[in-house]
Amino acid sequence: MSTLKKRRCVVLLSGGIDSAVVLALAISRGYDPLVLTFRYGQRHAKEVRCAEKLATHFGVRTHRIIPLDLSFLEKSALISRRVRIPQNRGIREILSGIPVTYVPARNAVFLAIAYGYAETEDASAIFIGAHTQDYSGYPDCTPEFLRAFEKALALGTKAGHEGRPIAIHAPLISMSKSQIIKMGADLGVPFEYTWSCYSGGKRACGRCDSCTLRLKGFREAGLTDPIPYL
Amino acid sequence: MSTLKKRRCVVLLSGGIDSAVVLALAISRGYDPLVLTFRYGQRHAKEVRCAEKLATHFGVRTHRIIPLDLSFLEKSALISRRVRIPQNRGIREILSGIPVTYVPARNAVFLAIAYGYAETEDASAIFIGAHTQDYSGYPDCTPEFLRAFEKALALGTKAGHEGRPIAIHAPLISMSKSQIIKMGADLGVPFEYTWSCYSGGKRACGRCDSCTLRLKGFREAGLTDPIPYL
Repeated sequence: MSTLKKRRCVVLLSGGIDSAVVLALAISRGYDPLVLTFRYGQRHAKEVRCAEKLATHFGVRTHRIIPLDLSFLEKSALISRRVRIPQNRGIREILSGIPVTYVPARNAVFLAIAYGYAETEDASAIFIGAHTQDYSGYPDCTPEFLRAFEKALALGTKAGHEGRPIAIHAPLISMSKSQIIKMGADLGVPFEYTWSCYSGGKRACGRCDSCTLRLKGFREAGLTDPIPYL
Repeated sequence: MSTLKKRRCVVLLSGGIDSAVVLALAISRGYDPLVLTFRYGQRHAKEVRCAEKLATHFGVRTHRIIPLDLSFLEKSALISRRVRIPQNRGIREILSGIPVTYVPARNAVFLAIAYGYAETEDASAIFIGAHTQDYSGYPDCTPEFLRAFEKALALGTKAGHEGRPIAIHAPLISMSKSQIIKMGADLGVPFEYTWSCYSGGKRACGRCDSCTLRLKGFREAGLTDPIPYL
């Protein structure tokens, strides 16, 4: 057993496929991951339970589930029952414009907390599962935002001022969903412990944008999605 | 009574002097303020009660107190009882380096949430009480950080992508504590509803860095601090 102290990183883990693959990737790169999951008023807690199962599966030492009331950002369908979740949309429609499931400044909030945590724990990097499939829709998943945010936080923190700014890694940024799923399969990600559906039933709905993208990803990867669908 | 719809802004209100003055200033500039206060695991809740009194005093329509568990940023004296709060330090000592009361990425977290809230409520600006007296010690109170953060969030949000980025205003940024106190007096800020002491007793300790800076500010402004001291 190696006695070398592993480099620490903070991983943002939602319980979806992307963050699960990012966690596996960080571990495969030799990091000791500190994992953060936010309970931010999502419609259901299924994603959070998946995050717990993933952290356990990968033998994560520290998994913090942070309660964070963002319910006042009530225009998002993800956190308000007053906004309907779109269903049965085609890929072109899904990828045009900013969807109603967008939560204002969500990744900025998560990354800011992750940055403070990384600084506290002397971690050198943050891993986030943002990628180009989200790119068109979610402005907080773009490389431009992530680079600008990294730069701002380097200016606004002790870590940055002391010459050890924390890197924000988005290793999936230019990958398609099917490439991410293939990489996850190679890394041994237990996809049965991931959840993408915007609803939280026993079975995924198969019709919301998130299910549509997930199913397309598995199909294109030539793999079978192990979770049950309605 | 004017029937014009007032411009909205989000004001970060801690219950300290600076944010109280910023709230009064935003109102004097004709804004309808939406006020955010964070209960983030401070050692005491006295500041939060002051924020409530200030919001009531100024007739604020919406004051949200957001619970936010940052207790895992445990190296800060403000949120961990394991770190001692320094006392009886001179001004030069206080203003050198980053103090133990620094909370990693705190303003980034607060501003990110404020940005999401501003976007949700169609507010055009965020007001924050950051200023130069904090400048030397707190990296997240510098104009460089605030400008970089504003730019990052414009890239990472729907508001920014739709050409209506939210401005981050720090109108006290280059003012001294005594100038801030004088301005607050002119604007009718009830200083008896503000709290600065890092302890939360009935009376302020008068010895922590925050009390030292507050007392110096009142002295230099030629005004009397109305709160009780030990």
